[in-house]
Amino acid sequence: MNTLGQLLTLTTFGESHGPAIGGVLDGFPSGITVDFDFVRQCMQRRRPGQSTVTTGRQEQDQVEFLSGLLDGVTTGAPIAFIIRNTDQHSSDYDELKDVFRPSHADYAWEQRYGIRDWRGGGRSSARVTAPICVAGALATMALKKRIPVLSITAFTSQIGPYSTDSANDMDYTSAMAESNPVRCPDKELASKMEEYIKELRKEQDSTGGCVTCIVRGIPAGIGNPVFDKLEASLAKAMLGINACKGFEYGDGFLSASQRGSEHNDAFRMEDGKVTTATNHSGGIQGGISNGQPIRFRVAFKPTPTIGQQQLTVTRDGKETTMEAKGRHDPCVVPRAVPVVEALTSLVLLDQFLSSK
Amino acid sequence: MNTLGQLLTLTTFGESHGPAIGGVLDGFPSGITVDFDFVRQCMQRRRPGQSTVTTGRQEQDQVEFLSGLLDGVTTGAPIAFIIRNTDQHSSDYDELKDVFRPSHADYAWEQRYGIRDWRGGGRSSARVTAPICVAGALATMALKKRIPVLSITAFTSQIGPYSTDSANDMDYTSAMAESNPVRCPDKELASKMEEYIKELRKEQDSTGGCVTCIVRGIPAGIGNPVFDKLEASLAKAMLGINACKGFEYGDGFLSASQRGSEHNDAFRMEDGKVTTATNHSGGIQGGISNGQPIRFRVAFKPTPTIGQQQLTVTRDGKETTMEAKGRHDPCVVPRAVPVVEALTSLVLLDQFLSSK
Amino acid sequence: MNTLGQLLTLTTFGESHGPAIGGVLDGFPSGITVDFDFVRQCMQRRRPGQSTVTTGRQEQDQVEFLSGLLDGVTTGAPIAFIIRNTDQHSSDYDELKDVFRPSHADYAWEQRYGIRDWRGGGRSSARVTAPICVAGALATMALKKRIPVLSITAFTSQIGPYSTDSANDMDYTSAMAESNPVRCPDKELASKMEEYIKELRKEQDSTGGCVTCIVRGIPAGIGNPVFDKLEASLAKAMLGINACKGFEYGDGFLSASQRGSEHNDAFRMEDGKVTTATNHSGGIQGGISNGQPIRFRVAFKPTPTIGQQQLTVTRDGKETTMEAKGRHDPCVVPRAVPVVEALTSLVLLDQFLSSK
Amino acid sequence: MNTLGQLLTLTTFGESHGPAIGGVLDGFPSGITVDFDFVRQCMQRRRPGQSTVTTGRQEQDQVEFLSGLLDGVTTGAPIAFIIRNTDQHSSDYDELKDVFRPSHADYAWEQRYGIRDWRGGGRSSARVTAPICVAGALATMALKKRIPVLSITAFTSQIGPYSTDSANDMDYTSAMAESNPVRCPDKELASKMEEYIKELRKEQDSTGGCVTCIVRGIPAGIGNPVFDKLEASLAKAMLGINACKGFEYGDGFLSASQRGSEHNDAFRMEDGKVTTATNHSGGIQGGISNGQPIRFRVAFKPTPTIGQQQLTVTRDGKETTMEAKGRHDPCVVPRAVPVVEALTSLVLLDQFLSSK
Repeated sequence: MNTLGQLLTLTTFGESHGPAIGGVLDGFPSGITVDFDFVRQCMQRRRPGQSTVTTGRQEQDQVEFLSGLLDGVTTGAPIAFIIRNTDQHSSDYDELKDVFRPSHADYAWEQRYGIRDWRGGGRSSARVTAPICVAGALATMALKKRIPVLSITAFTSQIGPYSTDSANDMDYTSAMAESNPVRCPDKELASKMEEYIKELRKEQDSTGGCVTCIVRGIPAGIGNPVFDKLEASLAKAMLGINACKGFEYGDGFLSASQRGSEHNDAFRMEDGKVTTATNHSGGIQGGISNGQPIRFRVAFKPTPTIGQQQLTVTRDGKETTMEAKGRHDPCVVPRAVPVVEALTSLVLLDQFLSSK
Repeated sequence: MNTLGQLLTLTTFGESHGPAIGGVLDGFPSGITVDFDFVRQCMQRRRPGQSTVTTGRQEQDQVEFLSGLLDGVTTGAPIAFIIRNTDQHSSDYDELKDVFRPSHADYAWEQRYGIRDWRGGGRSSARVTAPICVAGALATMALKKRIPVLSITAFTSQIGPYSTDSANDMDYTSAMAESNPVRCPDKELASKMEEYIKELRKEQDSTGGCVTCIVRGIPAGIGNPVFDKLEASLAKAMLGINACKGFEYGDGFLSASQRGSEHNDAFRMEDGKVTTATNHSGGIQGGISNGQPIRFRVAFKPTPTIGQQQLTVTRDGKETTMEAKGRHDPCVVPRAVPVVEALTSLVLLDQFLSSK
Repeated sequence: MNTLGQLLTLTTFGESHGPAIGGVLDGFPSGITVDFDFVRQCMQRRRPGQSTVTTGRQEQDQVEFLSGLLDGVTTGAPIAFIIRNTDQHSSDYDELKDVFRPSHADYAWEQRYGIRDWRGGGRSSARVTAPICVAGALATMALKKRIPVLSITAFTSQIGPYSTDSANDMDYTSAMAESNPVRCPDKELASKMEEYIKELRKEQDSTGGCVTCIVRGIPAGIGNPVFDKLEASLAKAMLGINACKGFEYGDGFLSASQRGSEHNDAFRMEDGKVTTATNHSGGIQGGISNGQPIRFRVAFKPTPTIGQQQLTVTRDGKETTMEAKGRHDPCVVPRAVPVVEALTSLVLLDQFLSSK
Repeated sequence: MNTLGQLLTLTTFGESHGPAIGGVLDGFPSGITVDFDFVRQCMQRRRPGQSTVTTGRQEQDQVEFLSGLLDGVTTGAPIAFIIRNTDQHSSDYDELKDVFRPSHADYAWEQRYGIRDWRGGGRSSARVTAPICVAGALATMALKKRIPVLSITAFTSQIGPYSTDSANDMDYTSAMAESNPVRCPDKELASKMEEYIKELRKEQDSTGGCVTCIVRGIPAGIGNPVFDKLEASLAKAMLGINACKGFEYGDGFLSASQRGSEHNDAFRMEDGKVTTATNHSGGIQGGISNGQPIRFRVAFKPTPTIGQQQLTVTRDGKETTMEAKGRHDPCVVPRAVPVVEALTSLVLLDQFLSSK
């Protein structure tokens, strides 16, 4: 339930307001020298409190590695790590003990388990994505050792009404995305998005958005047929991110309105190698990479926790109203960008290990 | 690789032009009386050659059950079944032995395995969805025994430029969908879609489309947190269908442009039970069903095999052109409808067994 | 439940008196040319009716491959195969419908599933080992392609009171074992065992025994730590064989009475390579092969089905007596020899694929 | 690799001389109130430094729970816990960096991973059994909530030449076993075993032994057929314990010399319930519990680390001699008793959850 992957498995644990969150990464290749600065960077990008567009919570997100390393080199043993929870304002959540927040996991979770950790969302808090970033950073190191040309670039491609032009996807770089707090590689659009989020914060409201991810350098032949298709594994991983509502790859939902003559990617030769003239397929055919850039997009709903008054019910079945307190992101999308990259790394390394 | 599910597992096998295709369904509850007519119906709906909008191939799709049944009742042992391949025109595919069809799995598969069954797409043929329909029919029986009110209704919601209005989703019934060959519950739209497909067939072209699925009657509390979320499992299953390019649930990609105040589903009481005023969430919150109808949409690309001349390359790296022969659907969407339902049943029964 | 392995998985299905038994082998390497004669040989060795010491039932055990092969070469797709059940005397079992046979799975199975296939033991019949032999034959081919020097030699090392001297284990060859119907490489002992079994048959009784297996040529470094240790995987596979009561490797239970100074295998150099002076460890240390021959022993109980009158109870809770009819082996051990080899191949190939 | 179980999974991590060891228990039922004293007791029993017959190392083995609990009650979320490593004398192991200890995992591990944590055995240290005891204690609580009459009693049944009489197995109690440092329920034998171990310690030698485990109260119908048989799962778990060389259940290896008429357990009625006159089967038939006590025995080899001079080789291929320093148990068996019980609980709860 809390494990991702087949050969390379990440098991995560921890609640928002428990002592710590963390993960165990098993099946990781031995002999990889861990770049701890890179891990910190990945964590830093996901961390709240980075800018005006994210929550004011300060999480130190100090990673402690507990196993699987000898002098900073992976040994093939499971790599466990924890991140202590600090700066918890549990009292902010006291009133949530007996009320179900609209569009949150509260009610469904309680129906499933008969009990629920109401402190800050417990296990359904976005905080559970922190261990994913640690593991993803490690997976990226292992992938880059095998495929030095590999690059994984995710960026914000939509916030509310503002969308990038997907025709430009391939021109965007990580540097462009990281140059602004919303992580949108189109500068002009980025300012509009930033303004929009600030405005929503004032209105005690929130917004959804999309993250696009481009993977370059994956050789042809990575993936598996039928039920463990590369795209199916990516979809499963992305839908596991809090607030994710959709996944599409290549031309995605647009394909539904296309003709075959328009969508098909003609093969051709380039420098003695098979390539395609277009990439409507998004780099995957029949569940297996075809050597072209992998391209997919992930949709996120607006943060459900808003300051406005909302109708809801109590645990003992009475209608009531609530206004969320606590410090919440009006938009999770900028912070989801490194999570999308991390999960992409984990899925690719897992599929790489089982394909090669 | 070829197995779906955790507690309830379906392993499928078989190629388009091999002796047979089939599956093994393990972890299936004992004591279920199999309704063989219902199995036949499900198969019949997926079968090609049903109408003017599908391929002219005639597949008898006779299911033979090999194990797991005693006098038509399931015993808890694995249920294996096979469907013999008949009416194969392998010679139609002879020329494909040395050419990669654009936007097909041919090239990627050969890079992965160093060998490829070129006869009719081999393991990457849409024929692999037949065993899914058999298993899905069985899963539906087991689910209905536990939840008699359960209904799973999939229908065609888009073909090329023609889309149903999602505001009407909840009014559509299976009967409405099954009343026409494109399986679109909006009659007027259905005729337009049918005309469009016929036109494309003449042009030797193809089209994409979407299937929407509505599940009613699933109680709250079914699903799992974090990596095995109900929506993640559904997404993985759907992305495993041939030609699938995207998955969204609830308001899906539309959520990206919504505000929290607009998207959130307020809880309220109705007849002493917790319900929600709206269902933007699509019946799932935090990976677990909340008792509202589950609603999701799946996008399919246009059939890649078209009769028009296309540019491509040969196995020995020469550019060439090809026109596909063989008998192909200009649009897979109507035949994907029962496959979407079957996978939905399988995922729900699996999650039901692990949640209750 | 009916699946063995991690990367290489064998799912078996079928009951003794159903239409067919079979299996699906997934994750099998592509590009292996199948030696169908070798498959037949493996099946022939397991088949009943081979000699005076086995059951008189005649099973043709004709294997039909349904998928995963192109012109006799594996494609990487799942390899499904079936064996039709023939020569069934179901009427022999009629009386077993309402009586639980002592030390059979009848009662436990019915408690588990509420229903039981009483015809010939159903899913708990030794017939379920036939698909294992097919899959094991394929696994052996894939292993030998990678490790040409590999040999897997199982033989009968005990029947009732007659045991081989384990000091001679390493001198025994498959040819020696296959030279007599009990598959004991010590000729003199073999005649005694054969006589003993014939005698028991007359007395309507049965006997237990042991199979020893020696694997030569496995390189050091195959296996996994902690819960998926090579010996743990072998133990699990062997305990899955009908009637198996125990597993030990290296000095096994004898180790319990040894001292460290006596049991430890001193390392030494030989021709520039690390080797050990002795092999009390049985070729595995810490879950991973150390390059020495792998040696283990498996215990089987006497066939529970005997012609003598036994006390038992009926399904409706009445004490009664029964004498088994039907044609049963007075000793399963000789026929278990190829099954032990087959499972060893499957486990080793699976661990090889995940270790290299 | 480091995960045990299907529905209930325990993933362990950590090395002997790393910062901490620990585990993540997922799929654990919600609503179980944790008895922390019981956890401490289980840990205390496994802990070294308990008596004259165990190593002088002092491990505090303080368990810190990190997740999955709300006010001491399980929530259904993964339960993570760590145990900090203290009292490490890493310098004791300095000389082992470049030498392979005979019959240890050193050499095999290095061949597998190309690197090895040489400090105190790293991941192949017996210290990895500590997290198993924590998880086993929790599993016992969950089982007892469901089956209050359940009891799991493991005890030392052999140390070197001293063995209990298996005919008395059913009379032994946990209290009898826990009354002496070797955990043998036969007092007289216990003193002899204790003397023997002390003597071996003086001689810088070690000894093997056996643990027998009896489970009472498990209802009929728990387990799974074919590859996930209850006995196969128990065998896999036990063979995962360091130094384990064999597993047998019921009459085990003795069955090899028995006749069917002698081994079979006749069914009979007692107080309106089906029972058996004898229990040669050890409570399991066809992979599924039959309601009788489950009985199995596990063999352990002598501790490989001994103070006597041994021949071995260095990492760069030179023959040499070594005498182990460090503080080692001359016999692991008494400390293995709680580990056997813990794994039994984990396997039974996992099979219970998938059977009921």
